[in-house]
Amino acid sequence: MAAHSISILITGANRGLGLEMVKQMIETAQPVKNLFACCRDPDGPKSEVKVSTSYLNFLPYIMHRNDACDHDSIKQAAKQVYSVTGAGGLNLLINNAGILFRDNVQTTTPENMQDTFNTNVLAPVLITQEFTPLLRTASKASMIPGMSCRKAAVINISALLASFESVKRTYNFLPALSYRISKASLNMLTVCAAEELKKDGILFAALHPGWVRTDMGGEGGDIDAQESVKGMLAVMTSLSERENGAFLDYQGKTLPW
Amino acid sequence: MAAHSISILITGANRGLGLEMVKQMIETAQPVKNLFACCRDPDGPKSEVKVSTSYLNFLPYIMHRNDACDHDSIKQAAKQVYSVTGAGGLNLLINNAGILFRDNVQTTTPENMQDTFNTNVLAPVLITQEFTPLLRTASKASMIPGMSCRKAAVINISALLASFESVKRTYNFLPALSYRISKASLNMLTVCAAEELKKDGILFAALHPGWVRTDMGGEGGDIDAQESVKGMLAVMTSLSERENGAFLDYQGKTLPW
Repeated sequence: MAAHSISILITGANRGLGLEMVKQMIETAQPVKNLFACCRDPDGPKSEVKVSTSYLNFLPYIMHRNDACDHDSIKQAAKQVYSVTGAGGLNLLINNAGILFRDNVQTTTPENMQDTFNTNVLAPVLITQEFTPLLRTASKASMIPGMSCRKAAVINISALLASFESVKRTYNFLPALSYRISKASLNMLTVCAAEELKKDGILFAALHPGWVRTDMGGEGGDIDAQESVKGMLAVMTSLSERENGAFLDYQGKTLPW
Repeated sequence: MAAHSISILITGANRGLGLEMVKQMIETAQPVKNLFACCRDPDGPKSEVKVSTSYLNFLPYIMHRNDACDHDSIKQAAKQVYSVTGAGGLNLLINNAGILFRDNVQTTTPENMQDTFNTNVLAPVLITQEFTPLLRTASKASMIPGMSCRKAAVINISALLASFESVKRTYNFLPALSYRISKASLNMLTVCAAEELKKDGILFAALHPGWVRTDMGGEGGDIDAQESVKGMLAVMTSLSERENGAFLDYQGKTLPW
């Protein structure tokens, strides 16, 4: 019997890790029924999404102008996804969209702090809130016991920089104060949501993609987007209720808070 | 030789823990030169500050209408403090002001999230930024070796709820999602600032006041404000460079992130 087809939504899907996730998910042997690739500005100057439209066209998708901090657009997206998935619900939500400023305590600004909070924290909170009914639907509709990313799950793309224990050895190299604060916040959301929604069978985990050679990671990164995403997708496939609320890297290793 | 007199600034000083800190600092044998008691609204309905004006009048102070998220008012406060302290600088900054909503993933709102972020995270970031020159001045002017709260320090009033490891056992009782996120953020600020400003001899630590019977803590708390503040002041007195970047409770016990 073939594995059941699932519905997936990814934010920040027009470039970098998000785009690579979309590509690999389409190419994988795992059946995907609906792939909703969301981004803020598909026509933006750095957007590469048009390059891969041929891949995306193989599947129903919404290329929604999803302003990451616009509550209405998030509600609208949830309605659109529901209109496609119906009683199947949404199985996997990947909060991948994020921004990074190279600020520190002495140089950050209210704008850096607030923009980073809105995109990296508030948006994932509101997206999780608005899509919880669809994830609950998927969990109920699934015949799979326990928890898994093929049943109902939210994966938050976090970063090692969010680890308190990493600060001493990484801060001089890359302070990124507003980003570290935002990703520690995203980790807290992950742990709280895992506790709050475990009764609904929805799995939550935070993943560190590694230091990746993307626009955000720069040219000095350890790995390319392909290797990072290959690892993260393997980790997602392996997740069960044991990892609910966990903070793992792209190789599946648990990271300290 | 008597210990040198120091200058201290406390935010959220018109009620609860902040007001109790002001009271105990005035009553203590430790000499305090300037005590700047800041609050958002000294005339607000819950403000008790007028009750204790007799204490505060023993010292120069600024009762500044310090809107916790207003960058200009923070800059203005730094100028006013500088005009009083001059070459002595500011020895101790206590970021105590904070708000708490009883929200969770399913019930929080953009307003809850943003208000909590602005008051509990953005304000401490900007206050720390604007007062860093005064703290640096105090550090340079001090004859005390190493790091201490009588030389140059920032104490961020955090909470056990910010501890990732506390979520499993405390979330059902008090979710407070936006608050937990904000205090984890404040902890991250503490660790980052400790790393960034150690070269200037400025100590940073995050303190958990215990579960206190205040307006915020409710009537079910374990201890009263007097006991909490007595403990926190003793912990502050004991801090040295070994605790730079630490997260401690009011009894001096290290808490897990």
